[in-house]
This record gives sequence, C-alpha cells and structure tokens, in this order.
Amino acid sequence: MSGDATAAFGTGELLCSLRWNDDGQCAEVIDQTKLPHVLEWAQLCSLESYCHAINAMQVRGAPLIGITAAFGLAQAIARDPSDASIRHARTALLATRPTAVNLRWALDHISMAINDLDKALRAAQALASAQRLRNDDIQVCANIGQNGLGLLTNLSQGDVLNVMTHCNAGWLATIAWGTALSPVYQAHTAGIDLHVWVSETRPRNQGMNLTAWELQRAGVPCTVVADSACGQLMRDRLVDCVIVGTDRTAANGDVCNKIGTYLKALAARDNQIPFYVALPTSTIDWQCASGDDIPIEQRDTDELLFADGVNDSGERQRLRVGAATVRAQNPAFDITPASMVGALITEHGVVEASVDGLLSLRENS
Amino acid sequence: MSGDATAAFGTGELLCSLRWNDDGQCAEVIDQTKLPHVLEWAQLCSLESYCHAINAMQVRGAPLIGITAAFGLAQAIARDPSDASIRHARTALLATRPTAVNLRWALDHISMAINDLDKALRAAQALASAQRLRNDDIQVCANIGQNGLGLLTNLSQGDVLNVMTHCNAGWLATIAWGTALSPVYQAHTAGIDLHVWVSETRPRNQGMNLTAWELQRAGVPCTVVADSACGQLMRDRLVDCVIVGTDRTAANGDVCNKIGTYLKALAARDNQIPFYVALPTSTIDWQCASGDDIPIEQRDTDELLFADGVNDSGERQRLRVGAATVRAQNPAFDITPASMVGALITEHGVVEASVDGLLSLRENS
Repeated sequence: MSGDATAAFGTGELLCSLRWNDDGQCAEVIDQTKLPHVLEWAQLCSLESYCHAINAMQVRGAPLIGITAAFGLAQAIARDPSDASIRHARTALLATRPTAVNLRWALDHISMAINDLDKALRAAQALASAQRLRNDDIQVCANIGQNGLGLLTNLSQGDVLNVMTHCNAGWLATIAWGTALSPVYQAHTAGIDLHVWVSETRPRNQGMNLTAWELQRAGVPCTVVADSACGQLMRDRLVDCVIVGTDRTAANGDVCNKIGTYLKALAARDNQIPFYVALPTSTIDWQCASGDDIPIEQRDTDELLFADGVNDSGERQRLRVGAATVRAQNPAFDITPASMVGALITEHGVVEASVDGLLSLRENS
Repeated sequence: MSGDATAAFGTGELLCSLRWNDDGQCAEVIDQTKLPHVLEWAQLCSLESYCHAINAMQVRGAPLIGITAAFGLAQAIARDPSDASIRHARTALLATRPTAVNLRWALDHISMAINDLDKALRAAQALASAQRLRNDDIQVCANIGQNGLGLLTNLSQGDVLNVMTHCNAGWLATIAWGTALSPVYQAHTAGIDLHVWVSETRPRNQGMNLTAWELQRAGVPCTVVADSACGQLMRDRLVDCVIVGTDRTAANGDVCNKIGTYLKALAARDNQIPFYVALPTSTIDWQCASGDDIPIEQRDTDELLFADGVNDSGERQRLRVGAATVRAQNPAFDITPASMVGALITEHGVVEASVDGLLSLRENS
C-alpha cells in the first residue's frame, strides 16, 4: 500500500474502498453490504471472488466497479497469461453487472495494455495498468475536492459550515475522496469547521448507511435526516450549501442523479442557497443534448416495500414494511435542470452548468 | 350503526375508523397499529381500553382521538354517573396524550353537556353528545369533499385524474371521508376515474401503511412512491394536482403539515400543477399570524433509525436500520408558504390561502 492521496485525512488511516495488498498479491475491498453495522474487508484472491464482489454489490459505484474488475482481470492474467484465460476472465467479469459502462471500459483498458506483449510480460503490465487506473481515479477525485474547496472557503464565515448532501458520492463510491464529498474532506483537512446534513436517501438508504458511516470514519460531524426534511432545514437557514454527485450530465448541464436531487435543488433555489454538483468529466454525456433525453431507470419495488437491518441479536434480517397487496413504483433517478445548478465542480475546474460552461472544459482538459 | 354518510362509497361497507355498537354498548375502532398487515377492530368496553387505544395509538389523528375520548367518558358515566367517577375518567383520558388539544376539547364538550343534569339522565345525554360529535365530524369531512369535488371535476379531462397526496389525511385520521382524501372519495363516488400517488411519508410511513391501505379499501387505485420521487413524477406530467391536509393553518394561509409537504409544493409550483390544502376550519389558528410563528416539533430519532414490519413468519418485528453510532434529527412538520397554496378546501367553501380568504370563511360560517 503506497502513501497515496488517501492518507491526507491526517488520522493515519487510509480512507479508501479498495487497496492492493502486495504481500498477499490480492485486492482488498470494504464489503459494503455489511455497512454500516460491520466494517469487513473482503480479500479478493480468485476470479470467483472478484465476480462475487461486483455481483453481490460488495463494491458499488461506477468507478469502483470498473477498477475492481481491472484488478480481477490482472490477477487472472497473473495466474494464467494465455489468451484463453484472458477471454474467460473478461467474459466472467463482464457478466457480473451487464449494464455497467465503466466495467467494460476498465477491462478494455487492461486488455489493450497487454495486447502486443509476450505472455511472460503480461502479468506485471496488467497489474501496473490496474494500479494506474486506481491512482488516476484518486487523483481525479482529489482534484474535484481541491477545485470545490474554494467554493466552501468562500461560504465559510468562521461559524460551522453546514453542507447538505444526498445519496453517497464519497470515497465509498470511488476509490478515495469521492466526488460530492471530496470538497468536504478537503475543507475538513484544511481546518474548516464543517457539519454535513445527510439525506437518508430512500429507498436504499445510501445516505444513512454509507455517507454517514464514511463521514464518521473521516471525523466529519454529520446528522442524518429524512429526505422530506431537507426543505425545512433550508427554510430554517440551517444549510449553507448543497453538494451532490451525478450519474450522468447532459451537454447542456442538466444533471441526472439519485431520485430526490431535484427536490433539493428546488428548495435551495427557493431559499437562495448555493446548489453544486461535483463530477468527473468522464460522466458528461456529450451525445445527450438535455436531461429530457435521459430515460429514468425503474427499479424493483421491493427496495421500497422491505427493510434491511439488524435484529436484537445483531443478525442481519429483512422485514416486509408495506402491505403485500400494495402497488408501488421506484424510479431511481431524477433530472435537475441546469438552471438550478449553481456550478459544476470537475477535476478540471469549476464551471457554469451550461453548454458554454461544459465546452470550456473540453478546451481546458 | 346508522346509515350515515360513511355508507356512500357504494361498496356497502362502512368506511369509518370508529363506530358505536348499540348491542354491545361499546365503541369499536380499527386498531391502526396493526395496519396495513391485519385489519382488526378493537372493542372498547372499559375506561382502561379507551385509554389504551389512545395511548398506544390504536387511534391517531386529532379528530379521532377527541371523539374516542368522548365515547370513553360517556361509557364511564354510564357505568357510574357520580361526579367522582367523571373526574376520575377525565383525568385518566387526558393523561393518555397530554398535548392533544382535541382531546381536552372533546372531554369539555361532554362535561358541559351533562353539567346541570340529574345523575339519572347523565348517561344517555353523554352518549348522545359523543354521537353528535362523531356525526358532526363526518359531516364536516363530507362537506370538505363536496367543496373539493368541483376542483377535481374541473381538472378531469376524461382521462384518469392523477392526484398526489402525502401522509394520511383520509378516513383513518378522522371518522369518515378524511380531509385531503375526502374530495378524492367524492370524485370516485361521482364516477370520476382517479389514481392517487401516495408518498411513502418517512419516517413513520403513514402514506405507505395507512393511506394506500384505506384507498384500496375504498376501491381507489393508488401507487406508493418514495417521498423523493414526487418531484420527478410532476416533471414527467404524471400528476394533475396535489392535495394534502394540515395540522395547523396560520391566519395568513401558511400551512403547517407533515414534513415533506413543502417540497411537494415547490415541485408543484415549478411544474404549474395545482397544489391544494384541505382542512376543517377548526384547524385555523387565528392567533398565529404566519407560519414563522409555528414551532417545528422534533420527534424521537428512533422513528428514522428503526424499521417496523413483518418477518417471514408474519410476525411483527423491529430492526435497526441505521448504525448505532449515527446522529439523526427528526423534524415532524414543515411550513408551506401561503403563496404556494392554490386554494384552501374547507367545509364552508374553497378560498384563497390569504388573510382575506380566511376572513371570508368567518363571515360565511
């Protein structure tokens, strides 16, 4: 484990979701299915364990899925660098989350890196490429944080700075730092006194179960509230700014993010509170003219009708909350119009959420 | 059981939350703690059972709590009409929910009705007064529905009319009809094709567990969604109007209702969708100049951090969802400014949410 940017929290602890263990020659990932109740690192030492980690959502978040798969392919190559072995590993890893774009992209990246090489050289090159992907992701997220730090510094008046976020766009969703939370961590590191309002994020509770957990690990004070509470907190002037991530950004600056983001943007506008979106430029979809072109994914309604938690004996369990006869719908994302976004925070700089703003990124990058 | 307005749903079933059983000389209430999994009527035949029903929240909703207490006092008087007995019963009933204003009001109403009477006449008079309170509540709610029906009729274009609501302001919160849902039931009875979007209403899930249940009982199609989904549904033009109830209305028309109401009002305004608030005029607080004067009740954060439901064996159980170390806040209400309210639907008519609109009600009533 190298002393990379993840060490900067000052606690001495590496706050990252995936690390490479040189001694064991395996990747280790935080098993996110056990959070927030237990912190357990899963050792990924075989192709099967990598496939399981992605498929069973021990890892989630587009960058983290891709990089986990890259290490999985590298490790399969270390075991057997033959073309047949590589094909088999690629197929198995791709099948874990068929729609994850980053997964294919990361596997292609490793394949291309070793394409022309003699078998004897493939293992070292594949591992180096996977580590490069990991380091690049850390650097992109660290830069997002540095670029967002200026915005938070400007808002900080000496009192505690109250930031609101939604879902999980922190270091658990990437390798380290995160996107929306990276400016928060950079500000915390810089000594700015912060408090984060964490929106529960129904129905999967990523806010309560992942964001609050990772903020606590980093020593950043936070408070979980129901998604519905976010408007009143802004009316009561208890929020200085909102920062969220995004799954996909249209070329005009419209933002597709976890369902509930749009309501927070509305409340922020109504109360003249800055609303920022943090993103790596890789999530900009230049082919997509506006948010209206983005289809809204509908997910399994069991996410809404059942609850996961721990019982009195500390065992994980599942309960039916809604009636067996109830009809439900579970849209997973919503669109926040660019006009409601105060700024886009990217690894290349802070820009206006507009066609011109986004085009300026292409010139700078 | 008389053929009162609750019979109007056409199913032959009396959709009400509390009924008087003349044969058994006891009140029967739907045990709302068992919903939505089991429909069970609790027989209230002793002072203790009335106190338990209110205290354990087998009944909830201001009007229903008050009327349950009134029947409880009437039944105690039937058993023993002495002044000492009445004092004892009043004290016991008042202690069940010390802050419920309607509770004291209903008990005062019964006490005053029998104040000057000979002991021999008290029992019959007290029961008659309790039944009068119940019938008055049904009539007020039915009138709210009739007055709101015009708004829904105007919006109905022949296609299915999509109404969104929040929390529970239906017949489970009153005796029959409800407030926000009364226009929906009246429209359904009038043959208008309706569908209701029911907002889950975290953290207590009254939308998913009470509103969806009571709409299903009445044969009104409905779909439960996460609170966060309500904005995107409006953006997608899947909502024709929003109707909610209110716990307290300020003299300027600002509305205090379940947390999350304000966000729905914001989304409705952004998408030019009518946003209505239905209320009995008894919830208007003439002493309260604006919503800014209404303190926001903070409730136990366990409501957010634990989930109630049924396990695989069908038994009720409770799980911890959030981490034991997580900090949370649980504001129960929010304020929606009068400017965002399209109209107030009351038993005396539909008025503008403004000082003038509310004053016109005083003239008409």
